[in-house]
Amino acid sequence: MAEEPKNGDAVGSGVGGREAEEEQVVNPWEVTAKDGGKIDYDKLIEKFGCQRLEEPLVRRVERLTGRHAHVFLRRGVFFAHRDFNEILDVYERGEKFYLYTGRGPSSEALHFGHLVPFMFTKYLQDAFKVPLVIQLTDDEKCMWKNLTVEESKRLARENAKDIIACGFDITRTFIFSDFNYVGGAFYENMVKVAKCVTFNKVVGIFGFTNEDHIGKISFPPVQAVPSFPSSFPHLFSGKDNLRCLIPCAIDQDPYFRMTRDVAPRIGYQKPALIESSFFPALQGETGKMSASDPNSAIYVTDSSKDIKNKVNRYAFSGGQDSIENHRKYGANLEVDIPVKYLGFFLEDDAELDHIRKEYGAGRMLTGEVKKRLIEVLSELVERHQRARASVTDEMVDAFMAVRPLPHMFS
Amino acid sequence: MAEEPKNGDAVGSGVGGREAEEEQVVNPWEVTAKDGGKIDYDKLIEKFGCQRLEEPLVRRVERLTGRHAHVFLRRGVFFAHRDFNEILDVYERGEKFYLYTGRGPSSEALHFGHLVPFMFTKYLQDAFKVPLVIQLTDDEKCMWKNLTVEESKRLARENAKDIIACGFDITRTFIFSDFNYVGGAFYENMVKVAKCVTFNKVVGIFGFTNEDHIGKISFPPVQAVPSFPSSFPHLFSGKDNLRCLIPCAIDQDPYFRMTRDVAPRIGYQKPALIESSFFPALQGETGKMSASDPNSAIYVTDSSKDIKNKVNRYAFSGGQDSIENHRKYGANLEVDIPVKYLGFFLEDDAELDHIRKEYGAGRMLTGEVKKRLIEVLSELVERHQRARASVTDEMVDAFMAVRPLPHMFS
Repeated sequence: MAEEPKNGDAVGSGVGGREAEEEQVVNPWEVTAKDGGKIDYDKLIEKFGCQRLEEPLVRRVERLTGRHAHVFLRRGVFFAHRDFNEILDVYERGEKFYLYTGRGPSSEALHFGHLVPFMFTKYLQDAFKVPLVIQLTDDEKCMWKNLTVEESKRLARENAKDIIACGFDITRTFIFSDFNYVGGAFYENMVKVAKCVTFNKVVGIFGFTNEDHIGKISFPPVQAVPSFPSSFPHLFSGKDNLRCLIPCAIDQDPYFRMTRDVAPRIGYQKPALIESSFFPALQGETGKMSASDPNSAIYVTDSSKDIKNKVNRYAFSGGQDSIENHRKYGANLEVDIPVKYLGFFLEDDAELDHIRKEYGAGRMLTGEVKKRLIEVLSELVERHQRARASVTDEMVDAFMAVRPLPHMFS
Repeated sequence: MAEEPKNGDAVGSGVGGREAEEEQVVNPWEVTAKDGGKIDYDKLIEKFGCQRLEEPLVRRVERLTGRHAHVFLRRGVFFAHRDFNEILDVYERGEKFYLYTGRGPSSEALHFGHLVPFMFTKYLQDAFKVPLVIQLTDDEKCMWKNLTVEESKRLARENAKDIIACGFDITRTFIFSDFNYVGGAFYENMVKVAKCVTFNKVVGIFGFTNEDHIGKISFPPVQAVPSFPSSFPHLFSGKDNLRCLIPCAIDQDPYFRMTRDVAPRIGYQKPALIESSFFPALQGETGKMSASDPNSAIYVTDSSKDIKNKVNRYAFSGGQDSIENHRKYGANLEVDIPVKYLGFFLEDDAELDHIRKEYGAGRMLTGEVKKRLIEVLSELVERHQRARASVTDEMVDAFMAVRPLPHMFS
């Protein structure tokens, strides 16, 4: 069925672990570029064995859905995939698929980097009219961040409110936390997956060591099994061959490389993936934003004043150090954070092009670009805060209820 | 609170693993004596760090329960314990505790060795009037025996019928299979335990290797957490300090050594244990019976004819090779299987003493002892088969229903 030549889903290739000769480390818990530089995404695609998401595939999405592609797609934020073309084949044949994404609820407030996969997933749900499962890995965060079970569960519910505020369709969306949902068919699939993966393999994929606790070692199947429709009997009973598409940041690839390796051995379909680069920190593009440094990111809880202050004080500028030099040489758009952020959140392609051109030529100053970014982010944050304020506990319960979704494909 | 000096519950002491210098291997999946000889239980107590169950403790049980001790107790089948004295302290103060035992459902038919812990647990339930949880580790057998999920679940239900046939009180007994029950508070406790145990520790305790799959590595918390009342909110909500007593064969000790090590670190009470030796194979006492050799054991599905044939043909005799020598030297009771089996199942102490004396002195012949054993076993098996035949699927559902047990302590 594959349209494009594929690299294998080799498991145990050691790409996620920290090795002496490792140039950059990208795994679900660590993203570090070589020598503090930028992440080399081309190298990542090659090492992980996924596929670059090329222009023709974006055009095909537009053709099939009859809509302009999402900015994250047309501007290359989602830049890699695994079998996304097969998902489009399925869709073109009039069949359906489902979406799976998730979040590890380790902190109260989400920043813009956290919102990227959810904003994109909402677009996919709207464009393809498909059901969506959202996993909140409260068990993972309890184990990795040493939170109590109760605190992890509380954070999962708080994060669910921010996720719901992104506008997901309750008739097509099931949100679950592992502490609430692990069991039954889901647990059966966890055991099936776990039987296929040795300790040596998870060492190779995730870089675990002998001193890691067995909670970490046993976690990968928990994130693997939402890829299989049989893990959700209340949604997909009798639809064991329904394909699954996972929108996520590329640091999650190790989980799904493992999942794709295991799937055919237990009689299941491999999940397809569509993978994003990392949203850069305010201080510059050297990896993901850090939860431990509140000034490295803009949070959805920030006020307009916070946003103005953070952008003006911390957003790394590619502008020159004097107005004279700036007029002469123009801004370095390759490192300029305000322009990068506008690339994520300014919908208007023409305006973005204009800014890039004027700023790059030195006719526009950093202050002007930052002013526009502050407007765009403030508007987004205000809209999110309004939406989140209207999310009640009852709505969280409704999204998280284990229930059939009779109109999920219509 | 401890009345007797205790050895520590050291975890990671390497006692369960196969090591070059290991003289005998006893872990939940392997029981092998040194050089094919008998298991040295004294050495086991010393290595595991449990306590010998001495005569005064048996007398104390009789005093507290007002009944004659079970044959398994008064004849030393249950020969070791951990903090059983503390359970008796609790009981004497008028407080309650609960019992936890279980079975890995790896085969259709149970043999007499499998029944030993259940017969004893029924006695404890009747004598102390306490609730009981019975775990069927269908997930474990799916992973170790490479059974399908469906077959493991089927065997769990079949085995539940044999367990119910032992006569447990449905108002005080909750039977559950892991595939059905893992989740919620039970899963939360699994994660709490898993966080406290490194891969190196499970290697030390259970002898896992880097080539073992992560299902095995993540299983020990599943068997650990029924030791904690909070794993059963429908039974023990608000009773977090309720003590737990686990009747089991001593090969299960590694699980609970691990559990006892972890318990105080997560704010829970350590479970107490009362541990049996192994029921010997028909061919002689060199370990546990083997499921792969049907002639090594008497099954609860055997007919009277099967029993007669197996005892006469395979039960290892301590009698001499000729009648003349037998009359002269008497039987070697140390190795004689018919006498050992009678020690488990012949209730009448006086008759057993008589047989031991007459047979040991050569006045009774092997054939006579075997004849008596065949009678005793046939009666037991017939009673079990009648009881099992009356166990309906509805009864299994009733025992396995997740429900409160309002009269479990009365």
